[in-house]
Formats: sequence, C-alpha cells, structure tokens
Amino acid sequence: MKKIEVIKIGGNILNDDAVLSEFLDQFSSIAEPAILVHGGGKAATSIADALGIETKMIHGRRITDKDMLRVVTMVYGGLVNKNLVAKLQARNCNALGLTGADLNLIPAHKRVHPETDYGFVGDFEIEDINTDKLSMLLNAGVTPVFCALTHDGKGSLLNTNADTMASGIASALSTKHDVHLHLCFEKPGVLSDPDDDSSVITNLSDKNYSMLKEKGAIHSGMIPKLDNGFQALKNGVQSVFIRHALQLTGTTLYHEE
Amino acid sequence: MKKIEVIKIGGNILNDDAVLSEFLDQFSSIAEPAILVHGGGKAATSIADALGIETKMIHGRRITDKDMLRVVTMVYGGLVNKNLVAKLQARNCNALGLTGADLNLIPAHKRVHPETDYGFVGDFEIEDINTDKLSMLLNAGVTPVFCALTHDGKGSLLNTNADTMASGIASALSTKHDVHLHLCFEKPGVLSDPDDDSSVITNLSDKNYSMLKEKGAIHSGMIPKLDNGFQALKNGVQSVFIRHALQLTGTTLYHEE
Repeated sequence: MKKIEVIKIGGNILNDDAVLSEFLDQFSSIAEPAILVHGGGKAATSIADALGIETKMIHGRRITDKDMLRVVTMVYGGLVNKNLVAKLQARNCNALGLTGADLNLIPAHKRVHPETDYGFVGDFEIEDINTDKLSMLLNAGVTPVFCALTHDGKGSLLNTNADTMASGIASALSTKHDVHLHLCFEKPGVLSDPDDDSSVITNLSDKNYSMLKEKGAIHSGMIPKLDNGFQALKNGVQSVFIRHALQLTGTTLYHEE
Repeated sequence: MKKIEVIKIGGNILNDDAVLSEFLDQFSSIAEPAILVHGGGKAATSIADALGIETKMIHGRRITDKDMLRVVTMVYGGLVNKNLVAKLQARNCNALGLTGADLNLIPAHKRVHPETDYGFVGDFEIEDINTDKLSMLLNAGVTPVFCALTHDGKGSLLNTNADTMASGIASALSTKHDVHLHLCFEKPGVLSDPDDDSSVITNLSDKNYSMLKEKGAIHSGMIPKLDNGFQALKNGVQSVFIRHALQLTGTTLYHEE
C-alpha cells in the first residue's frame, strides 16, 4: 500500500512570504505522493473588506452569501491556489490546482442547519470523494493542491472548511493507501497551556482530549481542528499530526480504548 | 488522428447568463474531445474598479502591474474559471480548470518590448506547450478549461491573451491531432461592413484579409483575432472559425497561395 501525505496549511503561513517559501521548499522535497490543502480566510476577509463586503462569522465559520461566495471563489480558487501552483512548479513539483468541482472530485451539498443559514457552505460525504480520479493523478506524478471549495453538482460552488476537506480527503484515500494527515497551523502543536509554546502535548488520545475539553484546557479554535483530526483517525488514516507548518514534530493523535 | 475542438469564448458571453447557459449546453454535448479557453477582461476591469485599481490598456492590451496581476489571477483563475467548471460538471462534462502553470502546461516568459512595459504579461513558444500532458488529460475523458494565465517557471503567474492562448494550444496539438479552432465573439463572423451583421464573409483567405486590412475594411479589434486565427492555420490547425458563440456558422479562414 502506497504512502500518501496530506498536508493542510492555513492563513498564518500563507500570509508570511518567508515562512511560506520555506514550507514550499520542504513540501516539494517530500519523496512520497503528497496532497496540499489550503485555506485563505484572512486574504478573503481582506479582499472582502476592500470590496465593501461585510464578513460575518458564527462559531468561527464564515457565513457565505452570494457576494462572499464570489470573494472566496476569487481568493481561494484563484489568488491563493494558483500562486501556490506557480511557486511549486518553480520548485519542480508538478502541482495541479483543484477545487472539489474540478473532475467532480468532491461533490457536496449545501449545508442544512436548523438554526443558522450558513449560505453557500458545502458539506460532503467521505464516500462521495472520487478517490479513483485522485489516485490516478497521484500515480501520474501529479501533486494536487486543493483550495477549500466544493460544488453541489447543480452548477454552484460551495465554501468548505479546509481542515474538514483535508481530513475527508485523507479518510477517503485511507481505504486503499497508507495515509498520513498533517493539520498545520501557527503553533508548535496542541498546547496544555495556550500561553506557553513549550507545553506541547506530544501524544494526545481521544480520551485525554475529551478530558481536556471538559476542563476547558483546550480552547475553542482548536476544537474543530482536533475533531477533524480524530475523525480522520477513526476513519482509518494511519497517523494524524497537529503541528507547525515548518516543524515536523508536534502533537500526534492516537486512539485509546 | 483524433479530432479535437478548441473553443475560445470572451467577455460578452461570460457576462450574459442566458447566452452562457446555452453555450455551455452546446459545448458539453460536443462528442469529440474539446478544450475551452476563456477570457474575462470585463469582469477583471469591474473588480479592479471596485478595488480602486486603475485599468491601463495600450493597443487593446492590458498593462499588468503587480496589483492587476492579483486581480486577473482572482478573476480569471478563480471567479470565471471555477464557475465555468462547476457549470460544466452540472452538465456531466468532466471539466478541469487550468492555468498554464498547472502541470506546467504552458511555460512562458515575461514580455520584453522595446517601448512599452506591459508588466506581468506572458508570451510563450508553441513548442514549449506540454502537449503530452494535455493529450493524456483528453484521453482520460477530461475537458480542460483554460483561463488566460501562464507562468514564468520562477514562481510568477503571467497574464496572457486568451485568443493567443487558444491559437497556441490548437497549434501545439495539431502536430498529432486533427484540430479545429473556434474563436468566438459577439458578432456572427468577420463582417465586410462592421455595422451590418448580415455582411458575414463566409470564407476569408489570408490574401483577402491583407487586402481588406489595407482598405481599412477590417477594424482594429478584429486584427489580433484574425492574426491569431491565420497563425493557427499556418501552424497546421485543420480549420479555423471566427464565429458567434451560439452559431456554428461564421467565417472560415483558409490559406490562398
């Protein structure tokens, strides 16, 4: 079974040219097939501001009305994605920029929520991801670079959380491959004390995570990231790391009975 | 030798939902492998305006400074391209949105011009186009959808004229395939009287084109389009049509000794 690395990066690294450059050097030298998944929320908010479009968030999730969908389509699908592709090609990495609409790789549906209308936000089922096409690309030596957009199959793009997309892609590929998921962010890992960068929890089990969550020791922004990470593990992903984009160590998630 | 259709559409069709929808219905029902190449200059100008970025044109060509490169990357690579992909996927057409940076399909270089600094504008050599990868995609049943961006191989995207890109792609593929190029626009074809839509020149030779140009009967906006069309014919493209996006008839170009 072939090893595949799925690496997710977010806004903090995308907005720092020096860090991004070092990350892309590292990423393009990975020997095994790799998939990059990126966010871009900060750039989207800044372009939305410049266009006079208000950014509305509920529980850290972007409300995506028609105007905001245009913004995220421009920023995620164009500005961020295609610049990453060009920078990876300059490093001899055969990058191909993708949304979930391209090749119908990630069909999704508009979120139905009892209380909140999130607008054009997409949720997908892992079993709907077209892993055959994705494997075909990887086998051809292509490095897929996904932005966090999916589509509804009826002609509309949908905004999707990048951590969820990375976790879903890793999960879908894990039925046939040995997949390693890296959810990267600006911290060196999951911290037992959010104010102390040296307090990295090297190994974190789902059981300990529940306990830490109950105690309030893991803060709100980490919760969806860890939920996505543990979900991937549960779905069969071989290993899941929560780490800084430039540091290979960090927090390794594991399952405890 | 397999038949391939290369179809270019521009701003006038992209900005009209009803016409675009009908065009995409027609495009997705083409039996042979097809490639779509699109512009998006009007949308780019409108987004640039909204962002307070001035649009500068010289001889109908966009001056692409750093800010304008960001705009065209967002608009061509994201907004226009990914929406076309989603709309084609809704029509069961297996679309894949591309720039010339993706898979290094169209390596280019920044334009060097003795008088004008066009900025981040890319020119490419037809022999540099990666036709093997493009053929591989077509053989896999993929429909490439190109926006008019290339890259310099050093990490920068470049703005490239969409007619030139369509003509170049058609030319490159014509060494191994039977390629038909359709440069579509808002008129029913090349007109002998620009004010009379019924004056379509059904067949136009390079010789007649030169004569009409000398007489001033062919107006300035048509000249680069026709130059690209005749160049494709010279390069071995089987047939070249200048036509309306929704009408299969129009002007057929031919070579006259």
